[in-house]
Amino acid sequence: MIDAARILERCDALAHCTELAGGLTRMYLSKAHRQASQLALAWMREAGMSARMDAAGNVVGRYEAASPGARCLMLGSHLDTVRDAGIFDGMLGVVTAIECVAALRASGRRLEHAVEVLGFADEEGVRFGATLLGSRAVAGTFDRAALELRDDTGTTMREAMKAFGLDPEALAQAARRREEVLAYVELHIEQGPVLEAENLPVGVVTAINGFTRLSVRLRGEAGHAGTVPMALRRDAFAAAAESAIAVERIAKSDADLVATIGRIKVQPGAINVIPGEAEFTVDLRSPIDSKRENACAALVEEIGSVAKRRRVDLHVERLQDHGATPCAAWVVNQIGRAVAAEGLPVRRLASGAGHDGIAMRAIADVGMLFVRCKGGVSHSPAESITEADAGTGARILLRFIEHFSPGTT
Amino acid sequence: MIDAARILERCDALAHCTELAGGLTRMYLSKAHRQASQLALAWMREAGMSARMDAAGNVVGRYEAASPGARCLMLGSHLDTVRDAGIFDGMLGVVTAIECVAALRASGRRLEHAVEVLGFADEEGVRFGATLLGSRAVAGTFDRAALELRDDTGTTMREAMKAFGLDPEALAQAARRREEVLAYVELHIEQGPVLEAENLPVGVVTAINGFTRLSVRLRGEAGHAGTVPMALRRDAFAAAAESAIAVERIAKSDADLVATIGRIKVQPGAINVIPGEAEFTVDLRSPIDSKRENACAALVEEIGSVAKRRRVDLHVERLQDHGATPCAAWVVNQIGRAVAAEGLPVRRLASGAGHDGIAMRAIADVGMLFVRCKGGVSHSPAESITEADAGTGARILLRFIEHFSPGTT
Repeated sequence: MIDAARILERCDALAHCTELAGGLTRMYLSKAHRQASQLALAWMREAGMSARMDAAGNVVGRYEAASPGARCLMLGSHLDTVRDAGIFDGMLGVVTAIECVAALRASGRRLEHAVEVLGFADEEGVRFGATLLGSRAVAGTFDRAALELRDDTGTTMREAMKAFGLDPEALAQAARRREEVLAYVELHIEQGPVLEAENLPVGVVTAINGFTRLSVRLRGEAGHAGTVPMALRRDAFAAAAESAIAVERIAKSDADLVATIGRIKVQPGAINVIPGEAEFTVDLRSPIDSKRENACAALVEEIGSVAKRRRVDLHVERLQDHGATPCAAWVVNQIGRAVAAEGLPVRRLASGAGHDGIAMRAIADVGMLFVRCKGGVSHSPAESITEADAGTGARILLRFIEHFSPGTT
Repeated sequence: MIDAARILERCDALAHCTELAGGLTRMYLSKAHRQASQLALAWMREAGMSARMDAAGNVVGRYEAASPGARCLMLGSHLDTVRDAGIFDGMLGVVTAIECVAALRASGRRLEHAVEVLGFADEEGVRFGATLLGSRAVAGTFDRAALELRDDTGTTMREAMKAFGLDPEALAQAARRREEVLAYVELHIEQGPVLEAENLPVGVVTAINGFTRLSVRLRGEAGHAGTVPMALRRDAFAAAAESAIAVERIAKSDADLVATIGRIKVQPGAINVIPGEAEFTVDLRSPIDSKRENACAALVEEIGSVAKRRRVDLHVERLQDHGATPCAAWVVNQIGRAVAAEGLPVRRLASGAGHDGIAMRAIADVGMLFVRCKGGVSHSPAESITEADAGTGARILLRFIEHFSPGTT
């Protein structure tokens, strides 16, 4: 059956494949990437899979179906990390999927569908500044222009691939066809505080949030902090502050929305000068595109009326826009049934962070299972989960695999 | 009579005494300071004054009374500038006072009181970071510790005085006694937009605002912009924004208050991270100390309740506190009568900016006359006044001098 302790041990072992002394940083096409891949390939083979590295540097293991060559249920997550990372983000999904296959193999079972486990080589995009490289290669949506991106040392991705022993010209061979894949399902830590707040070990993801990012610039009039009466001011920061409250109010009006003002800058920025300019960012997310679009329109309108009332010029720039990735209802339902079979409440929630499913959706219906993490903390060495939760997640994933019935709602 | 064109010409001539090619910067004890002083001394003598540079580098001209040795009405302003300054801030007051004495002299009149004109050597404090040096020396409140302050090149004020030809040990000789001075009256550009907004060339200052400066630090919890639901956030910037609106509301509740948030900084400051920390400054001013103190207490309380409601830690530090400098009622009234005699409404207003009267109040009752400036702009090459307003201001100052009656309300 599932060995939860081994799951944690293996996450720990992968964490030793690192470029950062005393911590964990593992970037695409690094020596640490090779070491981690070799570990994963060995565990796959030990679990009865045929295993290989694909043309993009992803590791791919296949546990054959009862009838060889059958379509596969694809499981996985990523093996790269952010800088000074935690040891579960990505890795937990790869290690748990291998553990499930090991359990299947231990019981001597073959299923109607094959099970494949993927360890994506680059999801975070730290080295070259482009995310989801591994899963885009598998989905056949890899943009070859990315090969010319350079890392901090000036090395292009193309050069780094060659140095790693991969052929950039063969990248397309990593792509899989929709006909091969029944679904893509990923287990991942939540990276947020919802499950912990509700005292639940797992949650079923309904969608990966779409997001819109705005840059908002307000231009009023700088002035002496002592000589300009309040009524004659065109204070750009006061306009920004009122806008921020409006943005928050709109986001709070619907549980399917979050909005964040993460950056704010005022000019000239002196203690005794009324700010003449203010610039801030808005990061708006929702699992439902129409809600995000409506909220975006509403907040731009609200900021517009704040600016108008305060006689401040407004310029809004849309920096990024990305639609939501809905999980397939039938996959969500089957994961939910596996959760319920563990005797747990089925908590559905959206993923605020991005995941490989965004890319994989191009060739397969997708689903995700979230595992509670301590304090909702991720992208930090403080990232933490319990062995009990790791075991619960793995048992649910295994039950889902065993009862997997393509397309059945 | 008053020659308004000459006033503007002389401001322009002083602007050519500069350390900044193509602009105006004139710091204490510079070559430009010497050049400007020599011009002012020459104009003083031409206007019939005995004139000298005092032990602090101020220029002092005296137009003797009908009875030699009588007490004096002291007029003046400063001859130093901020960096890349306008040509009227300070200089207009010195030049206009000289123009008034020239008019008295042209009519052959001697008054019961002497008239002295001072051109203070350092009000802005740009070179050594300490303001009101010239007027503090005259008021006898110069802090000798300032002699050890260093400029950007590492030169101490003591060294700079010697290099300029002044004896730091003789500084106390610049001090004047209360018994010598009937009042100190300064004409200055408004440096704010009130007079322009009300279509008035001049205003009578009732007080120089006191000020309180605070640093406010809010510590919430950083988090992923996608994964933390709005209800679970402790967003430090949202708390700062709500605080800013409260500060503005309090300041708007009383025409005797202004409050400014000139600096704001959030951490970590990434587009996709909820701010865990925010730090901002508050600059609060009022001509009435009790109103400033009450407003300060109110805004600290309001920020406290915002922080409490949002579960954010609050730390407020009082950076500076300076009481208001009220103008003497009898001086205000006499300036007001001179304004009315010109057929103009008597607009009383507080000065939001600091002036030499803050220091001079130690030895004399003070008063000020403000002259409208374009757009309220000051501390900028865009500083501008009209010749008509310069003439109006000078005629009012002359009338005030001629009708000056010490202590009469």
